[in-house]
Amino acid sequence: MTMNSIDSYYRGLNALVTGGLGFIGSNLARRLVELGTNVMVVDSLQTNTGGNRINLEGIEDRLQIRLVDLRNCDEIADLLPGKNVIFNLAGTVSHIDSMTDPVSDLGANVHAQIVLLEACRRYAPDARIVFASTRQIYGRPSRFPVAESHPMQPVDVNGINKMAAEAYHTLYNQVYGLQTVSLRLTNTFGPRMRVKDSRQTFLGIWFRRVVEGGVFEVWGGQQKRDLTYVDDAVDAFLAAGALSTTQGRVFNVGGCPPVTLTELAELLIAVAGRGAFEIKQFPLEHLRIDIGDYFADDRLFRKLTGWAPKVTLQEGLARTIAFYQNCLSDYV
Amino acid sequence: MTMNSIDSYYRGLNALVTGGLGFIGSNLARRLVELGTNVMVVDSLQTNTGGNRINLEGIEDRLQIRLVDLRNCDEIADLLPGKNVIFNLAGTVSHIDSMTDPVSDLGANVHAQIVLLEACRRYAPDARIVFASTRQIYGRPSRFPVAESHPMQPVDVNGINKMAAEAYHTLYNQVYGLQTVSLRLTNTFGPRMRVKDSRQTFLGIWFRRVVEGGVFEVWGGQQKRDLTYVDDAVDAFLAAGALSTTQGRVFNVGGCPPVTLTELAELLIAVAGRGAFEIKQFPLEHLRIDIGDYFADDRLFRKLTGWAPKVTLQEGLARTIAFYQNCLSDYV
Repeated sequence: MTMNSIDSYYRGLNALVTGGLGFIGSNLARRLVELGTNVMVVDSLQTNTGGNRINLEGIEDRLQIRLVDLRNCDEIADLLPGKNVIFNLAGTVSHIDSMTDPVSDLGANVHAQIVLLEACRRYAPDARIVFASTRQIYGRPSRFPVAESHPMQPVDVNGINKMAAEAYHTLYNQVYGLQTVSLRLTNTFGPRMRVKDSRQTFLGIWFRRVVEGGVFEVWGGQQKRDLTYVDDAVDAFLAAGALSTTQGRVFNVGGCPPVTLTELAELLIAVAGRGAFEIKQFPLEHLRIDIGDYFADDRLFRKLTGWAPKVTLQEGLARTIAFYQNCLSDYV
Repeated sequence: MTMNSIDSYYRGLNALVTGGLGFIGSNLARRLVELGTNVMVVDSLQTNTGGNRINLEGIEDRLQIRLVDLRNCDEIADLLPGKNVIFNLAGTVSHIDSMTDPVSDLGANVHAQIVLLEACRRYAPDARIVFASTRQIYGRPSRFPVAESHPMQPVDVNGINKMAAEAYHTLYNQVYGLQTVSLRLTNTFGPRMRVKDSRQTFLGIWFRRVVEGGVFEVWGGQQKRDLTYVDDAVDAFLAAGALSTTQGRVFNVGGCPPVTLTELAELLIAVAGRGAFEIKQFPLEHLRIDIGDYFADDRLFRKLTGWAPKVTLQEGLARTIAFYQNCLSDYV
């Protein structure tokens, strides 16, 4: 299946995007609307997540938006009948928040997911379900690039909870035949990400500071990361949802070739033509849950789907800066 | 440290046993009382678990019993100050219940555990914490005997939730220095187990039927299992809690040499001198979450602690039958 045929696959389908007012969810919802999909977005606009009403500004009349917590099983059940595909991106991603309030992270990332899956097996048993998992479940990798077979040793509560949620998705495929697939995302960036602080990634606050003309902090600096531009992440979700061969499986989704955070910071400033950064020691509470280097071996997903990132790191940074130069005030 | 010095280690210590009215928890609490430990038991007597007031009958005045749900963080906080060791056995173990009511399993096995650990880091940061994990987190093993490095691919919601709870324990050691250790138990049997039904293990209902003089069902029959007699499991908890070298680690705890379920059924009838069984096909809802064979590679734990099972399978079965012949009515 080529990317063109993947695009045409979605025309006229009924899609639900959980976390659809969030960063990746809203970009995905916008793309689906362009493709002619009937899109319903569900989001609880939980504090400290990427959920932001502005993310769907201008297309509100071309999709449906429901403000519902996934734990509300009765309301979720109402939304599911007739859905062909469910892009399941709801959740919290802040590692540090998961340590200060682990019970809330459990509610948003595990409780919500089991309620959704239970509802899916009753009310949308034939839907394809694409779950936004994370490289966080590997913890501090011991082998590079990190393949799907790498042991799971998450180093924060968020990683443990996402590991459980991903395992539910695989289980519901094995036991009930739900057509689930999980994508273990790496750091993703682009327009509509949370830039108010570093809750969504360290990069969020970097963009904010650069656009504001200020100084951002780089903690450590030598950690390597492979970043995914959000349009490429959206392509990965579309490919995973369109292909029946992905069912029941988990895939890494990487992105640009790995760079150190210092290299990334330098590139960001060069692209922006402004800004500055300081190298800082990790604060203790962050250091003890830091994963160090990460870059994915995503050959399995590329081979099966034909997916490959199209946007270079430099181009992705440029587009993101241009976006926030235009509308930073909506995000801070 | 020999088993004798392990026993003397507990004299005068303050111990909390969560799930202490349950099967292994009550046997452990009884042993601790014998060793001169100041024992407090906490249990919520949740339906469909092993919790049963009769399990501590006769020693109620030699320990303290608190009926509290671990999710009640204020009440748990009150119980922790001054505790030297926490044997953490609270939880539900029914695989089939976890599939019919996954949200309840999540509450009992994950939510309760994160609340307890949060309370421990605040109110008992120096306590040793021994967590009752399970071989269920491996799912259907692909290599035998199963070592701790075997991939975790749980095949039911209970296994996923216990995997998360174990990961919390390891995390709280790594991040906060809590002295946690997790024991991945295999099928454990003996006096005070739940025999009303097969919720605690398939063996529970076998004992009931044999003592009642009836016929029990063996589903499948060729699956191999290594069973642990409860006194040996109690020894494993005591060893794990007494040795500082176990901290932050996870260990398999096996038991008797593996037998097939058919061999086990035949041995049970021979030991009891009565009873009969029928081989049955697995009901579908059980088959799809069955793990097949399991027997542990527990050399790591044996080497580090000197622990080894002392009770033969035959002897353990005989003691268990004798127990229920005397008091079956308290358990059905």
